[in-house]
Formats: sequence, structure tokens, C-alpha cells
Amino acid sequence: MRAADELRKTVEAYLGELELSPELGRLEDVLRYSLETVGKRIRPILCLAVTEAAGGDVVDALPAAAALELVHTFSLVHDDLPALDDDPERRGRPSAHVAFGEGVALLAGDALLAEAIRLALSYEDPALARELVDATIGMIGGQHRDITRDDADLAELHRLKTGRLLAASVGLGLRAARVPDGEQASWRAFGEELGLLFQVVDDILDENGFATRLGVEGARRLAGDAAERARTCLASVPADTTVLRDLVDELAVRTG
Amino acid sequence: MRAADELRKTVEAYLGELELSPELGRLEDVLRYSLETVGKRIRPILCLAVTEAAGGDVVDALPAAAALELVHTFSLVHDDLPALDDDPERRGRPSAHVAFGEGVALLAGDALLAEAIRLALSYEDPALARELVDATIGMIGGQHRDITRDDADLAELHRLKTGRLLAASVGLGLRAARVPDGEQASWRAFGEELGLLFQVVDDILDENGFATRLGVEGARRLAGDAAERARTCLASVPADTTVLRDLVDELAVRTG
Repeated sequence: MRAADELRKTVEAYLGELELSPELGRLEDVLRYSLETVGKRIRPILCLAVTEAAGGDVVDALPAAAALELVHTFSLVHDDLPALDDDPERRGRPSAHVAFGEGVALLAGDALLAEAIRLALSYEDPALARELVDATIGMIGGQHRDITRDDADLAELHRLKTGRLLAASVGLGLRAARVPDGEQASWRAFGEELGLLFQVVDDILDENGFATRLGVEGARRLAGDAAERARTCLASVPADTTVLRDLVDELAVRTG
Repeated sequence: MRAADELRKTVEAYLGELELSPELGRLEDVLRYSLETVGKRIRPILCLAVTEAAGGDVVDALPAAAALELVHTFSLVHDDLPALDDDPERRGRPSAHVAFGEGVALLAGDALLAEAIRLALSYEDPALARELVDATIGMIGGQHRDITRDDADLAELHRLKTGRLLAASVGLGLRAARVPDGEQASWRAFGEELGLLFQVVDDILDENGFATRLGVEGARRLAGDAAERARTCLASVPADTTVLRDLVDELAVRTG
């Protein structure tokens, strides 16, 4: 069983050597630049850890894990554009549109999404690509609710904007390990709770969303409850879920 | 055998009733607005006409045909953004970003691409989605060559930017009709020629690209040759390709 740090290295190595379509031409450089802006890689690590805990081979889950990170990166590249968040920096480096221009960054985001689905379609079973696309659509719907301040139902907004892709990370990990549909319920419940936990901690760190709505103490309680329920889900799964439990603990106390 | 006009009506009716993901929320309105800006619907008509000529049922090809139009529409919504062409109008109506704001139009384009692939994934055979995604990546690579003036190889730029999706319209039509891979070559050669014809005529109408490179007379000869080769490909196919032949004739003399 590999710990999260080891899985992170595996993800970085795979992303670094990822073959992209030759038809992208020089646009490939922009995709690589955006992918190299190393984030926490939570989604791919979660996917790989689920596959391994469920008895599958991490190698089988790598294309799915990379696809999840590409969808996440696509959303960041587009979010950073002046039309949305207008963020000139991403993790200490110039955002894609600052480095390459707005039009090129727009196309690079589009290409990241398309390449992500191409990766998910490298599996014989189309269910992986279907789950990734559905999650992406949910995520976009969540972003739209966010920018139009359609946030009366904040839990639903977050479930879509952040939760859908985190839950899909669990789902794709299960599918890569060929866990039968009938045995996925507890795992998937874990994914939902982890998504909630992630977003509530985000809101506490950013001092908005749930932190504004419930107060910091209320938000902390909500995060604690979600973490506890996530642990309960893991406990009910007939597998060694130590690495996933560590991930929950890490996400619960993260400061960035 | 249905003529192009009848197929166009079938496409419009299907697009009008197309179910989109409920998770899009109010963003759905923006996708519908963009889809309702009625274009020539060349890609879906081509797809349906190929399916019918190849002995398939038009109904089976409708999701694929719609998926092609959604990819085309996604590319137009993003192209119209200030970061690229900055077009305030599309066929006499305000562009999506003028009507709904830049951020919303950006997300609507993303969602159109994702919904397109969801439609292509509604087939049991993942080959349809794979071909659509590959064509989309090629198209984006072509757009990037175009905006960065990486156009030394103008034929390759056009093959990617316009040709890939037109060729995929033929390819998806063949797959929807379950034409065996070994019997697709002449059909696919037809698709390539049609893509070239389409783009050369575009350049003549826009007075750029091939029209600048070869002169209007040279471009006209190139278009005529491509149309002739497209007809030759059709003649070698053991099917009634009248509707497709009419499409070639229409595209060769179009004025808009």
C-alpha cells in the first residue's frame, strides 16, 4: 500500500511523460506549462489510492487519474482568465493567459478538457469517460451558479463545483479497479463526504461561503462532521483504507 | 432517401428537444440560445446523409449529428469572445458573451463541448466518442495555428481547423450505420475532399487564406478539383449517394 506522498510522485512522473496529441502542435507547450504548475494533485492521488485500496493495480488507474487532473487544470486555466477571476498568478507563476495571451489560454483550456476525455476513453469500458464527463458538466454548472451568485443552496453549489470532480475521483478509481457496481455504495458515500469536507475547509481558509454563512465555528463543526462521516464510510468498506483515512486527516487540518 | 432540406428539419427538431443535463441549471438557457442561432447545420446533415446512404437509420445517427453541431457551436461561442475574434454578432443576433457576459459565455462553450461528448458517449460503441474527441483536439490545434499565424502549411491548418470536424461528420455517420472499418476508406476520402472544398470556398468568400495564397482563380480551380475528387469518391461507393452529391454541388457554389 503506497502512501499519498509516493502516489504523488507516481502522478507527477506520469503527467511529466504524458503523450498529448501531435495535432495540438505548439499549443502542447501551453498545456504542459499549465500541468507543470504543480498543485496538490488531490484528485489523481485520491483516484489511485481508491484503486489500490479496492484491490486494483495503480498502473491501471493512471490514465484516469491524469484525466481528472487535466479536467481540474482546464477549469483553473479558464477560471484565471480575465472573463472570470482575472488571476494573473497561479501558485507563484504567471497564469497561462499572462504567459501566453488570452486567446491561447482559452484554447489551451479547451484542449485540456478534450485531452482529459481522450485519456478516459483509452479504457475499454466507456463508463469511466461517461462518469468524468458527467462530473465535468456538474462542475461547470456549479461554476455558473457561483459567478451568477445563484447560491441560495450553497451546499448544492459546492457539491457541483468541487464535489462532483472529487466524487468522480473515487468513482474512476473504483472503475479502474473493476469494483462491481453493487459494491460501490460505501466508497461513493465516502467520496461525497470528502468533497464536502474539502469545500468547507476551503471556505474557512478563504473566509467565505460556509464560513460566512455558518460562522467559522459552525463551519469547523460541519467540516469535523463530514470528516467523521467519511471515516465511518471507510470503516464499513472491506479493505485496508489506511491511506484514504490519512488523506481525510490531511484534508481536515490543511492550511492551504 | 431524404434530401438535405428534410434532414435539416430533422436536425432542428432534434436540437430543439435535446435534453441537457439538469446540473447545468440556468446555464442551459445560454447553451440553447447558442444552439438556436441557426446555422447551415452542415455537419449534422452530412452525418445523417452518410448514415442513410450507407444503409443505416437516420434515427440512430441523431445523437452523433447533434454532438457534431454542439462541438461546432462550442467553437463558435469561444471564437466570438473578445480574447479571440471579438465578434459582437453571430448571424444577426448578439453573440453569447454580448447577451450573457463573457464569463458565462466561456462556461457555456465549455459546457457545449462536454454535452457534445456526453451525447457521443450515449452509444454503446465508444469509437464514436473517440473519433469526435480526436477531431475536436485537431480542430483546436488548427485554431491555435490560425491565431498564432503558424500558417506556413496552410493546407494542414485548414485540414485541422475545418476539415477534422467535417471528416468526423462522415466518420460518425458511418459508425452510426455500423459500416465495417474495412469498408470505410472511400467514404472517408470523400470526407477529406469535402473538408478541403468547404475551406477553399470559405477563403474565396472571405478573400483570405487560399484566395490570397493562390489568387482567386487558383483557389477556384482548387475548389473545383476537390469537388470533382469528392464526386469520384462517392461514385466508387456501392450506395445511392445522390443526397451527398447534391451537398457537394451546393457547397461548391455557395455564396455564404
